[in-house]
Amino acid sequence: MSSGPRIVEVRERVLKQNDLLARELRREFRRAGVQVISLVSSPGSGKTALLEQLLTRLRRTYRVGALVGDLATDNDAARLQSSGAPVKQITTGTICHLDATMVSNAVSAWTLRDFDLLFIENVGNLVCPSSYDLGESLRIVVLSVTEGEDKPLKYPTIFNSADIAVITKMDLAGAVEFDFESAHRNIQTVCPGMSVYPVSAKTGVGMEVLIQRLSQWERPAQTAG
Amino acid sequence: MSSGPRIVEVRERVLKQNDLLARELRREFRRAGVQVISLVSSPGSGKTALLEQLLTRLRRTYRVGALVGDLATDNDAARLQSSGAPVKQITTGTICHLDATMVSNAVSAWTLRDFDLLFIENVGNLVCPSSYDLGESLRIVVLSVTEGEDKPLKYPTIFNSADIAVITKMDLAGAVEFDFESAHRNIQTVCPGMSVYPVSAKTGVGMEVLIQRLSQWERPAQTAG
Repeated sequence: MSSGPRIVEVRERVLKQNDLLARELRREFRRAGVQVISLVSSPGSGKTALLEQLLTRLRRTYRVGALVGDLATDNDAARLQSSGAPVKQITTGTICHLDATMVSNAVSAWTLRDFDLLFIENVGNLVCPSSYDLGESLRIVVLSVTEGEDKPLKYPTIFNSADIAVITKMDLAGAVEFDFESAHRNIQTVCPGMSVYPVSAKTGVGMEVLIQRLSQWERPAQTAG
Repeated sequence: MSSGPRIVEVRERVLKQNDLLARELRREFRRAGVQVISLVSSPGSGKTALLEQLLTRLRRTYRVGALVGDLATDNDAARLQSSGAPVKQITTGTICHLDATMVSNAVSAWTLRDFDLLFIENVGNLVCPSSYDLGESLRIVVLSVTEGEDKPLKYPTIFNSADIAVITKMDLAGAVEFDFESAHRNIQTVCPGMSVYPVSAKTGVGMEVLIQRLSQWERPAQTAG
């Protein structure tokens, strides 16, 4: 019923509009020399704790900022502001994902050239965000050890929409009997060749390797202006 | 963009159709004397482990069954079948919630009078399932200690759509420094008066109290036939 021809048609039109705007955004980000990285995951996977660590560490070398999406509250923005980086909250009301319009509106008050790296934390959801291009150049899918090794098989679309995977809360791996090999195998089943970074934002394990990966991007030749 | 007037209009029509069918289903369940309980939560909150325990324990006294929703795989149904109860998997493809049609189709091959209690495990998602009535008489929202105490404030709509809350993985509460009082307070903020059941499917803590609550329903006078 909810996938009847009418609603599918409307959804496709919305997606097309989103793709066009996302393409424009991507061009704009590239021109400004800012690398945009988005994070998708289920609620409570530790995206915000991870981002807190990333902002704090990357700030030593780069000019970083973040947009954070949630249905309600600006808890995450308040929490991330303690890193000292500029952070903006996007509240979506009842919508289960960010879209290119929300991102475009949120960055409109910023001067993009003031940033090297901009993070976008999507609404916690393993389904809806997969179809919405936000103009990012790297998408990270985050999976926590407490969610279980089978999630890539159950939510293949969102894993497929991402470029790399990060496994969070590795400090709890023992307590929840998390089987890294099995999770890794399941990720490879749905996304052959995807790089997987196991980390703990709490103990810092794996953070430097991930930071290295995120620092590898092609800097555009700076134009005067 | 994704909430423009056209898509909202179509969504409302879909919801209305769903509500009508859900109402019919509810009447059918009541006539058959079956209590239908649904579970909603984010992915990896431990719904399936909880359901496994509930089916195994309730089966000693009642005739129980379950429908389990996922985008892909029938892992959950296979896992739950080990309880000995009849279990049916619903795979939704790319749809982020169950709806009344899917439930109606899934139970069509069963004789409802053969059940006392029927569980419906929704797709792991804290947004989409909130608007879809499945004809259930009790909806449980499940939150695991690893997701953090703030989730009720961030996803108020799904908490509001539920009748009771269950907090899972209490065996990990110490390891993740989970603050039960704070989570309880946040649930009361969005759903004043909601009962909260802390449990661990692993150690069995709290399971008997929850089972007691689920065993309290008004049995209809059995009619001949």
